[in-house]
Amino acid sequence: MKADKYRIKEGKKTDIRKLPTNSKEDDVEKEDIIAKYEANKLELAQLQEKFYADGREGLIVVLQALDASGKDSSIKNVFSGINPAGVKVYSFKAPSSEELAHDYLWRIHQKVPERGEIAVFNRSHYEDLVTVQVENIKPHYHMSDRNIGKDDKTFFKERCQQVNNFEQYLFENSYRMVKIFLHISKEEQTEQLLERIEIPEKNWKFRADDLKVRDKFDAYLDCFNDVINSTSTKNSPWYVLPGDQRWYTRYLITEILLDVMKSCKSEYPELPEEDRAQLEPCRKMLREALGEDGGSEKRSKKKAKKS
Amino acid sequence: MKADKYRIKEGKKTDIRKLPTNSKEDDVEKEDIIAKYEANKLELAQLQEKFYADGREGLIVVLQALDASGKDSSIKNVFSGINPAGVKVYSFKAPSSEELAHDYLWRIHQKVPERGEIAVFNRSHYEDLVTVQVENIKPHYHMSDRNIGKDDKTFFKERCQQVNNFEQYLFENSYRMVKIFLHISKEEQTEQLLERIEIPEKNWKFRADDLKVRDKFDAYLDCFNDVINSTSTKNSPWYVLPGDQRWYTRYLITEILLDVMKSCKSEYPELPEEDRAQLEPCRKMLREALGEDGGSEKRSKKKAKKS
Repeated sequence: MKADKYRIKEGKKTDIRKLPTNSKEDDVEKEDIIAKYEANKLELAQLQEKFYADGREGLIVVLQALDASGKDSSIKNVFSGINPAGVKVYSFKAPSSEELAHDYLWRIHQKVPERGEIAVFNRSHYEDLVTVQVENIKPHYHMSDRNIGKDDKTFFKERCQQVNNFEQYLFENSYRMVKIFLHISKEEQTEQLLERIEIPEKNWKFRADDLKVRDKFDAYLDCFNDVINSTSTKNSPWYVLPGDQRWYTRYLITEILLDVMKSCKSEYPELPEEDRAQLEPCRKMLREALGEDGGSEKRSKKKAKKS
Repeated sequence: MKADKYRIKEGKKTDIRKLPTNSKEDDVEKEDIIAKYEANKLELAQLQEKFYADGREGLIVVLQALDASGKDSSIKNVFSGINPAGVKVYSFKAPSSEELAHDYLWRIHQKVPERGEIAVFNRSHYEDLVTVQVENIKPHYHMSDRNIGKDDKTFFKERCQQVNNFEQYLFENSYRMVKIFLHISKEEQTEQLLERIEIPEKNWKFRADDLKVRDKFDAYLDCFNDVINSTSTKNSPWYVLPGDQRWYTRYLITEILLDVMKSCKSEYPELPEEDRAQLEPCRKMLREALGEDGGSEKRSKKKAKKS
């Protein structure tokens, strides 16, 4: 799979700050990639139908990135072809006071989907490992000293372990999780922020605070580097995707999704024998209700007429 | 603490089937215990006010037992003196189809209380470790073969580890959990079931199926023995309490609750300096609104008049 090279291997320290943000390295043609992307989306839509009908595995897709990296537009583009009955998108914003009064995985666990469904997390529990650390807002959690009183290094190391346990638990309970980091350059982020200012339809997305976060570009990337390396596991891997060309990023996302959904080997459920035995008598009964004799020839004619 | 001898120590294999179901061994007087119980309840109510105001720790009390062991009446009796604003009781029944479509801790985690609150779990995730095992209803979970296909021993061992991780996570996020098993003799259970049949007001609690469960008394106890030994930890201990004399069991429950709540060392929150500086001007303003000069002498008189 094309995206496999962007998968962060467990136990190997990968410096994500040195990974490409640009597609150039992969020597790809935009037209070619876009054609493949469209084909991937069709395949995804078909796979999802089976995944939904099977219902024995659930899928969680975590999207994280620095601001203005294209999380929202990626979600819109990649998932728009899939039956929305089986896809739930959740955006995790700054926690409410009710959420802060609970453990940080409380609001996350609630949004774990039913098996057969896909949940897309636009931001996630990783905010509690990264943003809280960079912004130094640990005291926002109203917790006992035995917990909040720990030094930051211990505190966040413990959190990484908690998250690994949580994700492993989900894997052991028939969920798959893939975590995607959209990796953009500071120049690309600056251009995206400028667009938000200069294009009136995008103004609503801009906050003056965004510039403060931009100042912390390196601090955020350093922190993501630590956290991603500590939480990329065999069963719940991180992918750090080059994000500067969105057509390429989206294509890579579909590659990852196809890979994980294929690995589920979903099947349409088999009708139990006793239900299967009922098919033919039920068919006859319904045929007769239409005043027909149950012949399949007639049925074909009727269908042809109707269309 | 009196109940400490009933705490199951981590790593020590304790055969709970050999632990007393009867209070006799402790050589206690009923009248004496009841007096102490009432005093304990008063102390609990006071402690809970501080615990609630402090809000930096949450408490989860798990109650498990074989059928007709007095879980409901214990909850009613022990917690009825406490301000219900800070106590939430949840009874976990057979899971709904929506619940079965999720991981088994999904419905449990949702009921984890806000910090400052007490949640009482009447049955809990331990049903997914015990009842599912004894009744052999693992296939009720609609899960992938890679998960459900494991042999039972591996499957339930894994679950114990998942539960230990979950409970340790809660401890690390400022929650306390105590787990109480009401341990009754088969004779006592039989008498309780007979009461449900012979006392008309209790008929509604009886199901003919209860007798099937009674037939499995030993199988359930064997399974609880395994699970309790595997999941009693320093930070989330099990207590196996003698249950045949309910007045004694309830007393022991209050002892456990007092112990864990005292260990939280709750304090009424300190008013921040800037808010404290506002107290006096605000008092003056309100006094003047009453047409008074702010003297504390007058206030006392007024209060006396009012009452």
